[in-house]
Amino acid sequence: MKNYTNLLDIENLQELIEEALQLKKENSAADAGKGKTLGMLFFNPSLRTRLSTEKAAKLLGMEVMVMNADKDGWALEFEDGAVMDSNKAEHIKEAAAVLSQYCDIIAVRAFPGLEDREKDEAELVLNSFQKYASVPVVNLESATAHPLQALTDAITISELKKVKRPKVVLTWAPHPRALPQSVPNSFVDVMQRADVDLVITNPEGYDLNSKITKDTPVIHDQEEALKDADFVYVKNWSSYEDYGKILSDDRSWTFSQEKLAVTNNAKVMHCLPVRRNVVIDDTVLDCGNSVVIHQANNRTFAAQAVLRRLLIPATTQVAE
Amino acid sequence: MKNYTNLLDIENLQELIEEALQLKKENSAADAGKGKTLGMLFFNPSLRTRLSTEKAAKLLGMEVMVMNADKDGWALEFEDGAVMDSNKAEHIKEAAAVLSQYCDIIAVRAFPGLEDREKDEAELVLNSFQKYASVPVVNLESATAHPLQALTDAITISELKKVKRPKVVLTWAPHPRALPQSVPNSFVDVMQRADVDLVITNPEGYDLNSKITKDTPVIHDQEEALKDADFVYVKNWSSYEDYGKILSDDRSWTFSQEKLAVTNNAKVMHCLPVRRNVVIDDTVLDCGNSVVIHQANNRTFAAQAVLRRLLIPATTQVAE
Amino acid sequence: MKNYTNLLDIENLQELIEEALQLKKENSAADAGKGKTLGMLFFNPSLRTRLSTEKAAKLLGMEVMVMNADKDGWALEFEDGAVMDSNKAEHIKEAAAVLSQYCDIIAVRAFPGLEDREKDEAELVLNSFQKYASVPVVNLESATAHPLQALTDAITISELKKVKRPKVVLTWAPHPRALPQSVPNSFVDVMQRADVDLVITNPEGYDLNSKITKDTPVIHDQEEALKDADFVYVKNWSSYEDYGKILSDDRSWTFSQEKLAVTNNAKVMHCLPVRRNVVIDDTVLDCGNSVVIHQANNRTFAAQAVLRRLLIPATTQVAE
Repeated sequence: MKNYTNLLDIENLQELIEEALQLKKENSAADAGKGKTLGMLFFNPSLRTRLSTEKAAKLLGMEVMVMNADKDGWALEFEDGAVMDSNKAEHIKEAAAVLSQYCDIIAVRAFPGLEDREKDEAELVLNSFQKYASVPVVNLESATAHPLQALTDAITISELKKVKRPKVVLTWAPHPRALPQSVPNSFVDVMQRADVDLVITNPEGYDLNSKITKDTPVIHDQEEALKDADFVYVKNWSSYEDYGKILSDDRSWTFSQEKLAVTNNAKVMHCLPVRRNVVIDDTVLDCGNSVVIHQANNRTFAAQAVLRRLLIPATTQVAE
Repeated sequence: MKNYTNLLDIENLQELIEEALQLKKENSAADAGKGKTLGMLFFNPSLRTRLSTEKAAKLLGMEVMVMNADKDGWALEFEDGAVMDSNKAEHIKEAAAVLSQYCDIIAVRAFPGLEDREKDEAELVLNSFQKYASVPVVNLESATAHPLQALTDAITISELKKVKRPKVVLTWAPHPRALPQSVPNSFVDVMQRADVDLVITNPEGYDLNSKITKDTPVIHDQEEALKDADFVYVKNWSSYEDYGKILSDDRSWTFSQEKLAVTNNAKVMHCLPVRRNVVIDDTVLDCGNSVVIHQANNRTFAAQAVLRRLLIPATTQVAE
Repeated sequence: MKNYTNLLDIENLQELIEEALQLKKENSAADAGKGKTLGMLFFNPSLRTRLSTEKAAKLLGMEVMVMNADKDGWALEFEDGAVMDSNKAEHIKEAAAVLSQYCDIIAVRAFPGLEDREKDEAELVLNSFQKYASVPVVNLESATAHPLQALTDAITISELKKVKRPKVVLTWAPHPRALPQSVPNSFVDVMQRADVDLVITNPEGYDLNSKITKDTPVIHDQEEALKDADFVYVKNWSSYEDYGKILSDDRSWTFSQEKLAVTNNAKVMHCLPVRRNVVIDDTVLDCGNSVVIHQANNRTFAAQAVLRRLLIPATTQVAE
């Protein structure tokens, strides 16, 4: 593995899942990262991602340095040839090259603006780091993807499934704020590579990018979609068609015990943080079907497996 | 020890004090915390508490992850059954459960609002973490208590006392801002368990909660109280009766050389930070009777002893 | 070495440079700092300095604790005898003494205000820490000096020079903001101790403090100064004479390929961050003559050599 900026960087998903589950079983400090440094750069706030990735790195013996680009007001210039006489003090060319001197892996979080679809899809921040860094780059959630979350989700389903090929339903739910599509995008992406029957359900106007959903069925009737589901992944996202907009806060889409009753006693997943009684009802989150905490725990082992791959040269990986 | 949220969590104070002093003597890295992670969560700023607890954890071989909930604007919902459609992104149920996945011990700081006594005494933040976390919780100063400071103070007095049962006086002093009662509350609490003669002195209107002071003498004449004191603990607090209010900035209560002269050549203590020439005069802080720096140093060993207890199961502790 | 607050703390520059280059060659974790803690205290933002110093400390096995005094609003009182009844919660006397309990080395960054020359030159923050701390103090860039950057620069020139005594030119360049003189001051200072021919060039009104430049030639014609240069150090600074003011944004001083052509195929240096096409042109930064990234990398080894000196007692150093 050279980078982990999107799911295409995974050569063999099943192998990586098993590696993560093995690391979870061992749950012990290792030396693959001894003397190595992970630099985590946040252009947006983070709690779960920061803590789980930091923990994963330390479990591998790495040192971790965290930079809050959002708070420290470290305004970077990304434009080629810019005459830098305004408020941007450093060009990405130097920033990425210098961080590559101090860090063995650079991890970056940069959310979308949700105003200009083309601009968000260009993934300027993530791609610029990848272009100018001389060390591997990890995506801690970018404008359009969250591959560490997606790997976590694949691990969780692989770990908890009771049938060889479970039915997995991704359902939209209401939310008071306009949220990115990065989590559902990457979830769809990873599930398409896994041994599952994937169905997406959302209100009209909320269809995800068709280049990502491809031939995955999208059903606008939530109850119909949920029938016989083994796993339900609940998540809000803002409209892709009417880009970044909130078109509906229809509480009839809130995931409830009534919805759960339609499924095959499904495990309920969410990437967290979750708005209780808006996205998912208390009665669901507090019942045995909810696996959201279990899922959050797997963030650590997904990150650990990815970092380990990036630390160990491919030849050594094969030789193991 | 299961948690350390208040002094009742200490089974045997003298034993814990001796353990801390032993750790201070050794002052060396240890392995009790190897592969373990301390998560420190601050809803209010901290310097001394953060550094000494971080240092203590690292001396035990632990990894430390610090979260500034105040700055990162991580607004938590604490109300059961809340419909989370406003500005609070995560419920304490998930927050505490998720942190329990990433951390082996969770330490929390959450100050009082000093406006609603009943609300402050409910200790909502600390108690909610204790309720929903599945790992031990440490109090880094809550609305009404600061048990790590109190343990530090007991260690310091135990270390420096010259008579078996010293006279210890807690005296109020003026301060320009309204401060919590947590430090004096816990100091009174711990001294009542120690082998000392405790006297409290403060102006009328500044009596602490009588459920805490119990039968400890409260004298409103500072000079009378200070007579023959072996230790003087100087500290401001806002009114408990007229809750959270500043009733007096009477500089005649500032601790000075004249006050010191009344004592039995007392050691002078303060939890720091201290307002010079308002709370305590320069001439006292800069003379040999002041032990405030010595006391600050003991914060590390108090935290180290507590963390060590929480890391090692009780049966092992007995077996040692 | 007792402290590293200015270049006078270096007893033998060449020896220290060689030590740093040796550490760079080994680039491995060491144990000189095991069980020791570096406290880094920032009164101003930092990225490169923080990361490289943190990395250096960790390469030595040290624990690192970072305090952002600027953000945490930790307002310190520096005046002797102050009656602390306003917004300053802690006196430097306690702050430095307490940090000395928790840290084995204290590193401090405190920029100039650039309004009152006399005040800036008094170096109140740095000197107060040195006065009241009981452990070594490191300057992470103060009002008038940046000795870690200067040592880095000396290391870089020593490493890359092709002649025994290279010609080194420090040239001013335009910049939209008023910047301190600390970097050029320390660069001139360290070069005067190195085996180089140093020339300074800047517009009229931008002469640095003559107590620092001493007998180093200052030429106001940039092209003349640059002739036959083996190294060019490009840097903006605000006026020292008309203190802290921007007197010129003359883009004819921007360092370009035309300027480079006058030199002896010089290596181009800058401490970073650099404003592209204002301070140095893209065509220079992106050509093989630029060594700015290489130079940034050496920050780690300069810091490592200094920290190692401060950790190891002088007698042991001699014995090695």
